[in-house]
Amino acid sequence: MTKGPEAVTALKLEQEMPLSEAMQAYFSKCDEKLGMVPNVLKAYAFNTTKLEVFAAFYNDLMLADSGLSKLERELIAVAVSAVNKCFYCLTAHGAAVRQLSGNPELGEQMVMNYRTADLEPRQRAMLDFAVLMTEDSARIGEEDRQSLRDAGFSDRDIWDIAAVASFFNMTNRMASATDMRPNPEYHGLAR
Amino acid sequence: MTKGPEAVTALKLEQEMPLSEAMQAYFSKCDEKLGMVPNVLKAYAFNTTKLEVFAAFYNDLMLADSGLSKLERELIAVAVSAVNKCFYCLTAHGAAVRQLSGNPELGEQMVMNYRTADLEPRQRAMLDFAVLMTEDSARIGEEDRQSLRDAGFSDRDIWDIAAVASFFNMTNRMASATDMRPNPEYHGLAR
Amino acid sequence: MTKGPEAVTALKLEQEMPLSEAMQAYFSKCDEKLGMVPNVLKAYAFNTTKLEVFAAFYNDLMLADSGLSKLERELIAVAVSAVNKCFYCLTAHGAAVRQLSGNPELGEQMVMNYRTADLEPRQRAMLDFAVLMTEDSARIGEEDRQSLRDAGFSDRDIWDIAAVASFFNMTNRMASATDMRPNPEYHGLAR
Amino acid sequence: MTKGPEAVTALKLEQEMPLSEAMQAYFSKCDEKLGMVPNVLKAYAFNTTKLEVFAAFYNDLMLADSGLSKLERELIAVAVSAVNKCFYCLTAHGAAVRQLSGNPELGEQMVMNYRTADLEPRQRAMLDFAVLMTEDSARIGEEDRQSLRDAGFSDRDIWDIAAVASFFNMTNRMASATDMRPNPEYHGLAR
Amino acid sequence: MTKGPEAVTALKLEQEMPLSEAMQAYFSKCDEKLGMVPNVLKAYAFNTTKLEVFAAFYNDLMLADSGLSKLERELIAVAVSAVNKCFYCLTAHGAAVRQLSGNPELGEQMVMNYRTADLEPRQRAMLDFAVLMTEDSARIGEEDRQSLRDAGFSDRDIWDIAAVASFFNMTNRMASATDMRPNPEYHGLAR
Amino acid sequence: MTKGPEAVTALKLEQEMPLSEAMQAYFSKCDEKLGMVPNVLKAYAFNTTKLEVFAAFYNDLMLADSGLSKLERELIAVAVSAVNKCFYCLTAHGAAVRQLSGNPELGEQMVMNYRTADLEPRQRAMLDFAVLMTEDSARIGEEDRQSLRDAGFSDRDIWDIAAVASFFNMTNRMASATDMRPNPEYHGLAR
Repeated sequence: MTKGPEAVTALKLEQEMPLSEAMQAYFSKCDEKLGMVPNVLKAYAFNTTKLEVFAAFYNDLMLADSGLSKLERELIAVAVSAVNKCFYCLTAHGAAVRQLSGNPELGEQMVMNYRTADLEPRQRAMLDFAVLMTEDSARIGEEDRQSLRDAGFSDRDIWDIAAVASFFNMTNRMASATDMRPNPEYHGLAR
Repeated sequence: MTKGPEAVTALKLEQEMPLSEAMQAYFSKCDEKLGMVPNVLKAYAFNTTKLEVFAAFYNDLMLADSGLSKLERELIAVAVSAVNKCFYCLTAHGAAVRQLSGNPELGEQMVMNYRTADLEPRQRAMLDFAVLMTEDSARIGEEDRQSLRDAGFSDRDIWDIAAVASFFNMTNRMASATDMRPNPEYHGLAR
Repeated sequence: MTKGPEAVTALKLEQEMPLSEAMQAYFSKCDEKLGMVPNVLKAYAFNTTKLEVFAAFYNDLMLADSGLSKLERELIAVAVSAVNKCFYCLTAHGAAVRQLSGNPELGEQMVMNYRTADLEPRQRAMLDFAVLMTEDSARIGEEDRQSLRDAGFSDRDIWDIAAVASFFNMTNRMASATDMRPNPEYHGLAR
Repeated sequence: MTKGPEAVTALKLEQEMPLSEAMQAYFSKCDEKLGMVPNVLKAYAFNTTKLEVFAAFYNDLMLADSGLSKLERELIAVAVSAVNKCFYCLTAHGAAVRQLSGNPELGEQMVMNYRTADLEPRQRAMLDFAVLMTEDSARIGEEDRQSLRDAGFSDRDIWDIAAVASFFNMTNRMASATDMRPNPEYHGLAR
Repeated sequence: MTKGPEAVTALKLEQEMPLSEAMQAYFSKCDEKLGMVPNVLKAYAFNTTKLEVFAAFYNDLMLADSGLSKLERELIAVAVSAVNKCFYCLTAHGAAVRQLSGNPELGEQMVMNYRTADLEPRQRAMLDFAVLMTEDSARIGEEDRQSLRDAGFSDRDIWDIAAVASFFNMTNRMASATDMRPNPEYHGLAR
Repeated sequence: MTKGPEAVTALKLEQEMPLSEAMQAYFSKCDEKLGMVPNVLKAYAFNTTKLEVFAAFYNDLMLADSGLSKLERELIAVAVSAVNKCFYCLTAHGAAVRQLSGNPELGEQMVMNYRTADLEPRQRAMLDFAVLMTEDSARIGEEDRQSLRDAGFSDRDIWDIAAVASFFNMTNRMASATDMRPNPEYHGLAR
């Protein structure tokens, strides 16, 4: 409510100075490729170690080799964030879905109600599992994992689906708990 | 249901061989200090990178300097895991609460209903926030953060509370989605 | 899933031919002013009477004199539709919020989590009441109405807030039950 | 709590004077046929236009030709109102079920738990859909509409089921938000 | 669905023959005073011991000396049964509220939404506590008990409120699990 | 929070003196066999009649002849108490599961998430029914009872499952409403 123009969360935490060289380089690369440093990274920058382990975890999860495409990982990110109503993640990853898919409506559907999207059965099964993990993980049983296998996913793919859905259940809560704000640039991207 | 004696999850994933030297050393240290390698680490060991970033993230979160004691971080871990009914995390971190507190009943209360524990107002406020984050993070507002400040927490402490609560919302779901099983040694520890 | 290019809902209902003159004129006016006939009107056009009473009800609600501005009525529409995850209404009325406010981010916040918007206390109270009506109307008591009066609303304003929130609880369900699809033009409007 | 003997809601709104001739005639007809003017109509009478559009919408919905009998529409009204715990609608439409069915127990079952009623599969499917729309409309999919078709309903019938269920989700909330009180005559009707 | 005219539940259980003399006398007394043997007693009559301990428990709870009047205990019974949507208990105890209060509308309000009844603050506090116990007992804390003391209840009264609310959470579930049917005589009583 | 060393609940209620001879004998027998008088009995001891009917009801339920073994009844007790997060019942009956099964892990699984236990289908069906009764009894239908019959249970067994699940829904709420504390001896039993 009273955040200044530079604040990215509601917590008053000073950026650690200087950041490690690796993180300075990472910020520069973001600026160059995206035209901005995502606010989530600025939020973690009060502590170089926390920033480094977060960035390493995130980059492995979303960018490393996987049976899931980058778009599929972003679809999970947004469908999960919609359950948790996370303004930051819906904004940032909704933009990613629009960009990677070239389909602005698909991004909107993930934000609003993923069940309205015309998805292949494989992707619908993937999102149903991710949303079940988000809403009621304690009820998951072998039949749920089997339905993913039946939709064509390997056990390694199931791990990756679970890992992405789990991660956004973490980061959604981190963003809401700290009132993290998305970079305004996201709103107009790939509309 | 059909997991063999060595399986730690319901997913068939082979351990990467060999693990990196750092991770081999880490496993040895676990064995030495705990008498076991926690199954969560074995579960991630199908991929050295994933294991390394998970271990780095976890160790910073739970062991690095913080205004929260290690016991307080474990209290959050268990109170969050109880909402999510995560068998793995309740078992492993319930044992940690019993050990670090020297109070077996406190560990049980965290598992069963944290509201029954005779906690200082500071710790009760911390757990109320962590549980609210778990149950309904989208409703969190400045008044909730302020109630933590009023209970004596700094903004950095609030970050750490949020980070621990968020992390177990991730790992609870990872464990339930993969049917991860705790090492049996935990059950009898510090009773 | 198998809707043809012209279908606006999942129900096969033929447009009544000819529509009444009043409704033909209304459709022409929509086309002229909006560049489209909103799909919700096409959906009701299988029966002239139903279309007429729906349009009359809607236009009085959203356009007639009221202590609530048109933007405020649209804010309620979107906040309610977000609870009900209605793709049609979030798309059409999210666009209306962006247009009437000239603030694309505000439209996104209403869709994603209205609690993240920097609203005046009056508007926050209005939306809190509308969302409470949506989530748990049976719990509403005099203290909830009084909190609206305390925020500056008259009893007539309270009627209007209640009427708009109630209406979108109807139309959200109508849209979801019939899989009503928004005109694609809405997605790019006022970004 | 402090409503006078004439108040029908908790909002202080004066009846518009005079009502339009059409609405005066409608009130007279109600008095003649029912022995009372239903309080919901008195509640809307602060504004002739709102009264007229509400009455037109309602009468088309509940009385116009439809593949659903009037009793079936009232069954939906009560089953939906029971989910929303709306005292006004349960009282008024519970009485209508008792009258139209000649079966007082059926009216009670709709109020208390529609699942206890010995209904034909067609009517049970209709109420299951209406209640699903009320509780969780965002999850409705083609399989739910198909189950209505399998129970013998046409697409036009499905529209009408959806329209009645949606309408009472509106009017339940309007009644609860304004503390609308049913005419006392309803309680003893058709017992 | 396929229950014969005499069946009181969906379970095929033969009445134990003969019942103990005490229970035969109890059934005769019921017949004489109420004009019927309540079906719940017939349901337990497959086993004399179970019938005896149930009757003893029930009669002490609802009829023994208490700071709560018999009407107040019936108010709790119905408010709790409304949360659980128990057809049997709402029917039988709704009738009891109508009879003991001489106010048919009050009975209906307890069934439909107890919050609409014009109750003294003492009785409203009592029902709020009973409903909280029903919906979310794990959250009850000292502040909830204190609010009962503030409303004029002694610790013994609080025990009795808790005991009645708890009992109907048992019997509601017993009735729903076995599809127990109320005697039809209840529907028309004290209207 | 302020309970003295002897208090077993948060309510100040004096033990009735003297207890009936039967109850004195019962307490002595408990002491002799268990090494303690369970606190729930002390809690009821403010009134001999209430203690007697509670003890009679409980002993018939948990100890009388039944198609369910004593362990099965305890499994239900704990699975139900886990839904309701009742510290007293989870502690006392979790210990009973550990003792009767000789399997400490099974006791933990019932407390933490019964779905993680490797149960026979019969016992899993039994617990699924008991948990459904606890969470949403109003939805139970003939198909749920039939699934118990299909798993090998007789109608009498179904009564007993329902009776145990219902009873713990009562006693969980009684314990939470009064802040009843388990005897500390339970925590270390049969680990």
